[in-house]
Amino acid sequence: MPYFDAASAAPLHPVARQALLAALDEGWADPARLHREGRRARLLLDAAREAAAEAVGCRPDELSFTSSGTRAVHSGISGALAGRRRVGRHLTVSAVEHSSVLHSAADHESRGGTVTEVPVDRSGAVDPAAYGAALREDTALACLQSANHEVGTVQPVAEVAGLCREAGVPLLVDAAQSLGLEPVPGGWSLLAASAHKWGGPAGVGLLAVRKGVRFAVQGPADERESGRAAGFEDIPAIVAAAASLRAVRAEAAAESVRLSALVDRIRSRVPVLVPDVEVVGDPVRRLPHLVTFSCLYVDGETLLHELDRAGFSVSSGSSCTSSTLTPSHVLKAMGVLSEGNVRVSLPAGTTEEDVDRFLDVLPGAVAGVREKLGAPAPAASAAPAASLVVDALGRRCPIPVIELAKVIGGVPVGGTVTVLSDDEAARLDIPAWCAMREQEYVGEEPADRGSAYVVRRLS
Amino acid sequence: MPYFDAASAAPLHPVARQALLAALDEGWADPARLHREGRRARLLLDAAREAAAEAVGCRPDELSFTSSGTRAVHSGISGALAGRRRVGRHLTVSAVEHSSVLHSAADHESRGGTVTEVPVDRSGAVDPAAYGAALREDTALACLQSANHEVGTVQPVAEVAGLCREAGVPLLVDAAQSLGLEPVPGGWSLLAASAHKWGGPAGVGLLAVRKGVRFAVQGPADERESGRAAGFEDIPAIVAAAASLRAVRAEAAAESVRLSALVDRIRSRVPVLVPDVEVVGDPVRRLPHLVTFSCLYVDGETLLHELDRAGFSVSSGSSCTSSTLTPSHVLKAMGVLSEGNVRVSLPAGTTEEDVDRFLDVLPGAVAGVREKLGAPAPAASAAPAASLVVDALGRRCPIPVIELAKVIGGVPVGGTVTVLSDDEAARLDIPAWCAMREQEYVGEEPADRGSAYVVRRLS
Repeated sequence: MPYFDAASAAPLHPVARQALLAALDEGWADPARLHREGRRARLLLDAAREAAAEAVGCRPDELSFTSSGTRAVHSGISGALAGRRRVGRHLTVSAVEHSSVLHSAADHESRGGTVTEVPVDRSGAVDPAAYGAALREDTALACLQSANHEVGTVQPVAEVAGLCREAGVPLLVDAAQSLGLEPVPGGWSLLAASAHKWGGPAGVGLLAVRKGVRFAVQGPADERESGRAAGFEDIPAIVAAAASLRAVRAEAAAESVRLSALVDRIRSRVPVLVPDVEVVGDPVRRLPHLVTFSCLYVDGETLLHELDRAGFSVSSGSSCTSSTLTPSHVLKAMGVLSEGNVRVSLPAGTTEEDVDRFLDVLPGAVAGVREKLGAPAPAASAAPAASLVVDALGRRCPIPVIELAKVIGGVPVGGTVTVLSDDEAARLDIPAWCAMREQEYVGEEPADRGSAYVVRRLS
Repeated sequence: MPYFDAASAAPLHPVARQALLAALDEGWADPARLHREGRRARLLLDAAREAAAEAVGCRPDELSFTSSGTRAVHSGISGALAGRRRVGRHLTVSAVEHSSVLHSAADHESRGGTVTEVPVDRSGAVDPAAYGAALREDTALACLQSANHEVGTVQPVAEVAGLCREAGVPLLVDAAQSLGLEPVPGGWSLLAASAHKWGGPAGVGLLAVRKGVRFAVQGPADERESGRAAGFEDIPAIVAAAASLRAVRAEAAAESVRLSALVDRIRSRVPVLVPDVEVVGDPVRRLPHLVTFSCLYVDGETLLHELDRAGFSVSSGSSCTSSTLTPSHVLKAMGVLSEGNVRVSLPAGTTEEDVDRFLDVLPGAVAGVREKLGAPAPAASAAPAASLVVDALGRRCPIPVIELAKVIGGVPVGGTVTVLSDDEAARLDIPAWCAMREQEYVGEEPADRGSAYVVRRLS
């Protein structure tokens, strides 16, 4: 049963499992105690820190173990902002950061700070020049992910780090998606990562803060982990995290090449096998194991269930799969289609056969969902009217786009279709559909309920 | 090799180990995902929450898993204070709470809040009436531990909860030391606990917030754990924590009786076997497995090393064993001797033979340390002077008290000894020595360096 959601959580690496088991017996005591059990725990903790620091590319005393990648990001951002409070209260982030970064930014704003979100292009990458232009006199901190978690696009970290250095602004790199593959290029000031993304156990994040970076821990004092991660250390998990990081790094070079070829196969075959599909993210500057595509006229949640039934575990950035019923902020920032979105992220060891079976199953699964939803066939019908209004109020993604596609053939070239919708995803998906179909997106107008999205038929 | 430091961290319970191993294979995926691995993880998490909630005595939706007991306390206090911000910014705590509570209180004060520390008696217990009197119109939250972590004294939680209810103030109970033994008496509004204290794994804390308690999560938003514990859940550890809580509870009734008898043996034998010892904490209203005593003229760190060499792992609240070189705030608040302090906390399964061997080893270990330090023999010497000054500047606990004891016989009854000391522990230990020796502690006077502690010989 192939699991294709490694970017959410990778299955536990065998080395992590072995190390965890060994450390359960040796590493349960309080490393702050003077007795032999405490000293033994301390030795394990110190050795894990040495190993992890080497993999990160920092000194052991620059590295703290947190309870998750999210905690590493929260503490890293709040500590760096507070440490440079005198410089100013401006924070720069990219628009496609992980929610832990964007939620930290929102928290900062709610306390009176200011935030600039640097936009990305259609591939999901920031432009280094645009990022550099967002740095100000009062910028206390800049954040940039090493690679995007939803579409796999690698960010220009080295270039942005250079611009940050010139501007005298510390750069926090969220390396959650890439640290198991390779070290982050130098030049960062703070780095955050998460063990369960590389096959380590849950419960371990990394926060590295370079010597010389001003840092003021927020919240109640605590003596653990240089004061940067409150609470009793989970040493068995930390040992497993460090051991597995070394192990996956040793395997990464060969495995990345193999997985990257499998992803290339998905990238090239999906648009051939499935009509009306958009493969998103940078095709070259990308993570080796991750690919994302969106399918017109498809409900992401239903497609996930169909694939799950066929034995494939994937994830989705479609609005119907999120608890807030809003589409992924990443797809939104890229301006690409969000409906019928599928993220495939291959764990180490994925076979060619698994991928081929997925490519066998996908077209039928998509067609099945489209049929259920009554999606339009390529050709269209009937006596053309000059303009039409489609009432899709109260209906969720992908219905508004399906209704639009059904009727567009019913207006003459030059005529318009107005879609009434109160679904948040429509704001993203109707313009995206227009771009894919080469129709003109005229714009959005206020309506009594929701919005009116106006589309002009061009062909 | 007997480990007598269960109150710092208990060895992993066999049930915790088994559950952890089983859940490593089933519970590594993201429980927020819709695929089968995610659903399987979610089922494990839900079942663990049900089991833990039953043991706590709350509804599953009132219980969040945090990454440690410390985090549970930090989040519980900050959330409850923020939720009742309109009522006021006053916080009430006992003087002998765990550092996670006192550090939260200090953090609250640094943000403009006010804090009342309710004192304790010589046994370490708060007086319910005094606690009730500390509740004010503007009290947003009250905190009280279920039992003290250093001396084992059980607090009058039910009485204090009643007074809090009358005053309309929510009570947070830090149940870290007792939850593995029994549920906390009803009436609490928030409860915090830590799995590694009951034989569960590190990396899991519990935070229960009763429905109807005003609570506003602080810090960046996060969808996990009802928004109360940011970061990816460590489900294998959570499963192990819940399973072991049930297991230790099932064993607790019988095991508590057995351990309590062993502690009684230590409490009664130590003062007979070792001269100049003070056993502290309530002899009756106490945790079954924990006892603390202090030895005059003994350096806590050296005694710990001696006991460690003899195979016994204990901990200490003496100043020389803390990173800040200050004595335990608990012993300080109780006004008892802190030098030569030893905390013995017996894990489940401790045998009578282990305890008897400890009682065999202890007198020699204490005598050895005293001899090395040149502690005074019971009888005294020489031609009496009316008053003497002892210069113990620059010398650490227990030297100032040893010097005092050496010379007190050198002044006539009614004469005084003035000890010059710049050691923080002297402020606590010289009055405590006077109480133990029935000499009069006249008081502390400012000095060029440190302080001058004046003692009058009464006998």
